[in-house]
Amino acid sequence: MSTTMSSSPELAVSEWFNTAAPLTLAALRGRPVLLHSFQLLCPGCVGQSIPQIQRIERVFAHTDLQVIGLHTVFEHHAAMTAVTLRAFLHEYRITHPVGVDRADGASDAPVTMRRFGLRGTPSSVLIGRDGSILHQLFGVEDDIAAGARIAMALSAPLPHSATIHPTTNGHGCADGLCAAPTSSKTSI
Amino acid sequence: MSTTMSSSPELAVSEWFNTAAPLTLAALRGRPVLLHSFQLLCPGCVGQSIPQIQRIERVFAHTDLQVIGLHTVFEHHAAMTAVTLRAFLHEYRITHPVGVDRADGASDAPVTMRRFGLRGTPSSVLIGRDGSILHQLFGVEDDIAAGARIAMALSAPLPHSATIHPTTNGHGCADGLCAAPTSSKTSI
Amino acid sequence: MSTTMSSSPELAVSEWFNTAAPLTLAALRGRPVLLHSFQLLCPGCVGQSIPQIQRIERVFAHTDLQVIGLHTVFEHHAAMTAVTLRAFLHEYRITHPVGVDRADGASDAPVTMRRFGLRGTPSSVLIGRDGSILHQLFGVEDDIAAGARIAMALSAPLPHSATIHPTTNGHGCADGLCAAPTSSKTSI
Amino acid sequence: MSTTMSSSPELAVSEWFNTAAPLTLAALRGRPVLLHSFQLLCPGCVGQSIPQIQRIERVFAHTDLQVIGLHTVFEHHAAMTAVTLRAFLHEYRITHPVGVDRADGASDAPVTMRRFGLRGTPSSVLIGRDGSILHQLFGVEDDIAAGARIAMALSAPLPHSATIHPTTNGHGCADGLCAAPTSSKTSI
Repeated sequence: MSTTMSSSPELAVSEWFNTAAPLTLAALRGRPVLLHSFQLLCPGCVGQSIPQIQRIERVFAHTDLQVIGLHTVFEHHAAMTAVTLRAFLHEYRITHPVGVDRADGASDAPVTMRRFGLRGTPSSVLIGRDGSILHQLFGVEDDIAAGARIAMALSAPLPHSATIHPTTNGHGCADGLCAAPTSSKTSI
Repeated sequence: MSTTMSSSPELAVSEWFNTAAPLTLAALRGRPVLLHSFQLLCPGCVGQSIPQIQRIERVFAHTDLQVIGLHTVFEHHAAMTAVTLRAFLHEYRITHPVGVDRADGASDAPVTMRRFGLRGTPSSVLIGRDGSILHQLFGVEDDIAAGARIAMALSAPLPHSATIHPTTNGHGCADGLCAAPTSSKTSI
Repeated sequence: MSTTMSSSPELAVSEWFNTAAPLTLAALRGRPVLLHSFQLLCPGCVGQSIPQIQRIERVFAHTDLQVIGLHTVFEHHAAMTAVTLRAFLHEYRITHPVGVDRADGASDAPVTMRRFGLRGTPSSVLIGRDGSILHQLFGVEDDIAAGARIAMALSAPLPHSATIHPTTNGHGCADGLCAAPTSSKTSI
Repeated sequence: MSTTMSSSPELAVSEWFNTAAPLTLAALRGRPVLLHSFQLLCPGCVGQSIPQIQRIERVFAHTDLQVIGLHTVFEHHAAMTAVTLRAFLHEYRITHPVGVDRADGASDAPVTMRRFGLRGTPSSVLIGRDGSILHQLFGVEDDIAAGARIAMALSAPLPHSATIHPTTNGHGCADGLCAAPTSSKTSI
């Protein structure tokens, strides 16, 4: 990431769960937002990032951090429909707002995923109170580093030195991570 | 379980994955069979029993143990279709034969699940070389006990004292276990 | 803890390991200090708090956080000598400075332990740049909360709401925690 | 291991804990014996093999398996005395008989360790009802394989194919394993 913070693009969501009204990042300006990109059939999401998100929710329950799930389906589209997602959220006790990233047919990757240049699932984007992207990660970070980073987002930015980089390359799922085709990065 | 071993009922499967031809327990007589009942949206299956089944496959790779997965959908039927199951098996690297337990409309629980009287997912049934049910469990057993039990099935039966009983009661998923409605037990 | 931060007492150490010169909290004023109280035969220290301290060291390696281990022996004194501690630090790859809390015969609990009012092992004390005690804990906190708290100590204090309280009461070791006799609390 | 089962050598123990009378393998003939070689400052023993031994004890509590701990100190001798061992056994809730492997000054490695040709800690030796060595391992085996092997020892031998080999080579502790100097292997 560059030292100049980039302003976050907006979400493009076709259907929301766990919220009475659609969310926009613009309307959330002023609060830190943790955006969690996942697919319900992604092993690393189910086994690692979703449990971590739920631990984060518990620790920061009394802060104004907004956690948002984003179902960014870029493969097995027929297998991960909204019907299946609804049951998944129920069974995994996911209670924070979750949006289905909008598919537009221009790419296997959905619109928000392309806007943020997400490389695959799980990914997370930490957005500051001013709407800038503080940190963006493909993979799952150490809990200590994640806690530190969010604490700083609640007050001020943390240096990026603590980032643990995922080692997965290429397309498809391996070691629990699901990498999107490269086209999803360039078709923003 | 009674001391008199009961003979295993037959499988009723509507679709098979990871096998060129349908399997029957009758045709497998002579080999020990580990039947693993799961649902793809069951947290205890994804997080605990499927990883254990995969460890079992590795340790007993050079024996004649036959592992069979059985997708016993008794809730969220529209969410766990064969299309989603196919992608699930791919993403979770499940390579042993998996059958979709046949739904007949007589109950939310499918036919094989009712025949065996399975209480929910994950469940496992260990069937001896003679076709008798050696052990049947709702939940996940300690790895040491599972290894011991299968080793004995490869030669002779083990006493049941090592069983770890699940504590979940009632219908629905809790602590990773998904309990079937009671009707599925009585509608055999 | 009260809202008025208390100033940290000083260390009383009879022998240092992993440092060329003795450390004092006074001399460390200006840097945040994480003081980790342990006993080498305490299961919760070996299994939980020491691994967490080592994860903390990795994540905050590029900051000015000072981690200090304090061997606070309050039981089995003949079993946990400096000779055994030296071998323990070697085998567990502990490289940060570790001091042996000074025993003075006035209590089973050593001097620094009494000064801080530590209830048992593992305990941790987070000391701010200004020398005040920001947080003191008997037990092990969630990694996310620990990371958040240290990040704030590197800049500003965190509310105490994220604390996970240990449930152990009384004297002796249970659930991995070793509680000191009550007298060690009152004999400060 | 050769296909010809070797008969187990006898224990040489200088001090026993958790038993009213000294044990000998000769007197235990007829029962399967699981001999667990450890050092109290060995990270892989404390973190992996001892917890596994305790799981084994629970699963096979109602069988005639005899578990015996053997404190095979081959380094840091002054740090791992009988006084420290006694406190260690207390804190880690180890209740099965534990013998201190007898040191004779002929080698850093103690006598029983040399008799069995143990390569380091943790090691385990599974001895059959007839006194033969069924399996000997430096490191920690998968729980499923361990359970299977012990179940077979309670009745009949298992093929050795399931063994998970440790990758540590050389002397000293790494990845939790502590390898003895090579001399301990040749000085039997």
